[in-house]
Amino acid sequence: MTRASEIRKSAFLSAEEREHGRQAKRIAVLETAASMFCARGYAATQMGDVARELGVTKPTIYHYFKNKDDILNACFEEGFSLFEQTLKEGPGEHRSGAERLRAVLMAYATCMTRDFGKCTVLVPISDLDEPGRSRIAAQLRRFDGRIRSLVAEAVEDGSIPPCDPKIMTFTILGSLNWIARWHKSDGELGPDATAKAITDQLFAGIGGKTQAWTAPKPVHARRRGRSGT
Amino acid sequence: MTRASEIRKSAFLSAEEREHGRQAKRIAVLETAASMFCARGYAATQMGDVARELGVTKPTIYHYFKNKDDILNACFEEGFSLFEQTLKEGPGEHRSGAERLRAVLMAYATCMTRDFGKCTVLVPISDLDEPGRSRIAAQLRRFDGRIRSLVAEAVEDGSIPPCDPKIMTFTILGSLNWIARWHKSDGELGPDATAKAITDQLFAGIGGKTQAWTAPKPVHARRRGRSGT
Repeated sequence: MTRASEIRKSAFLSAEEREHGRQAKRIAVLETAASMFCARGYAATQMGDVARELGVTKPTIYHYFKNKDDILNACFEEGFSLFEQTLKEGPGEHRSGAERLRAVLMAYATCMTRDFGKCTVLVPISDLDEPGRSRIAAQLRRFDGRIRSLVAEAVEDGSIPPCDPKIMTFTILGSLNWIARWHKSDGELGPDATAKAITDQLFAGIGGKTQAWTAPKPVHARRRGRSGT
Repeated sequence: MTRASEIRKSAFLSAEEREHGRQAKRIAVLETAASMFCARGYAATQMGDVARELGVTKPTIYHYFKNKDDILNACFEEGFSLFEQTLKEGPGEHRSGAERLRAVLMAYATCMTRDFGKCTVLVPISDLDEPGRSRIAAQLRRFDGRIRSLVAEAVEDGSIPPCDPKIMTFTILGSLNWIARWHKSDGELGPDATAKAITDQLFAGIGGKTQAWTAPKPVHARRRGRSGT
């Protein structure tokens, strides 16, 4: 390729570069919308507001998304994609069930300091249209189920004391999801410090605990309960 | 009074009975609206829906409330009125700071199984108009502050271990407020059982604890921290 032809070619993007640019623009629209949905509510956010915030025209937004419902659905999908990632913190390098659970909760808590994570908590799912609402509700149930399994596994290997995994999961997800309501991106606690503070507090409980819990009985007897310990 | 005049008088309500009836109707409108706001969202609930649900006309609703904003504001006020009641569980018969805290959290958790309590969590405050939004935000901060004080008092009297009351309060209120999202009035766990299960879980923590925490040092040295215990 001559120097002149290289210069001419560089004026055009490759197919890969175009796709990358398209994805970047799509995400920019979603991030802007998610942030506005969280701050002022779904009903009060108009497509024109999102366009104005990005310095583009409304038709540009419509090039990427059919309508506002489509954008909200995509925001929830991005949120769930973050949540799915957190489950990868579980297996492998972390030894006990408690350690796996802690790693996932820390990662999930961090999601709640980001707009896509916040959006799934701050925008009521009643704002979604069907069939998006049913799909998102199913994803929520599935994620809840994954956390319950992690809790059950930690009880099973004796790294946390016996508990009702359903109640434990509601307790945990409530505290972590609440981060979406109070965490400010310009606040004194950054995402990692926030995640650690809440996760540590959840592990310690109000009653507090200075040492790691140790199973009171040998494995074969452990699941009978905690009486007599 | 003759028998005949008594009969004639009974066809009319006394001023007290009229006021009582008016209040009962006002609350019936609010409860119906709160329940619908929680189930289908604020934007999707119309004044006509509330009227239809109560079997009355729209003008009847307008006799009690100016508009939908007025109803939402009143629902939040009813919610906060329940929350204020929970703080009365604190002093008096309960001995330690931890016991006072537990009593308030149990009562607050129960509020989250009722429509007025749920409404304050499930309807984003961005759905409120001004000046209602600022007033409600201030009430939320004040209640948060009261829980922080209860936590600080329990640390102070040594009935719970040292902690950051701000982080502890976010952890607690997240779990309790989340009840609004998952609790079903026709579910297997009633309000009291739900409140007890989540409060117990918060006290125990994920790490668990079978015995009550006891302060590791005499009172004069306690606040220096937990090192060396």
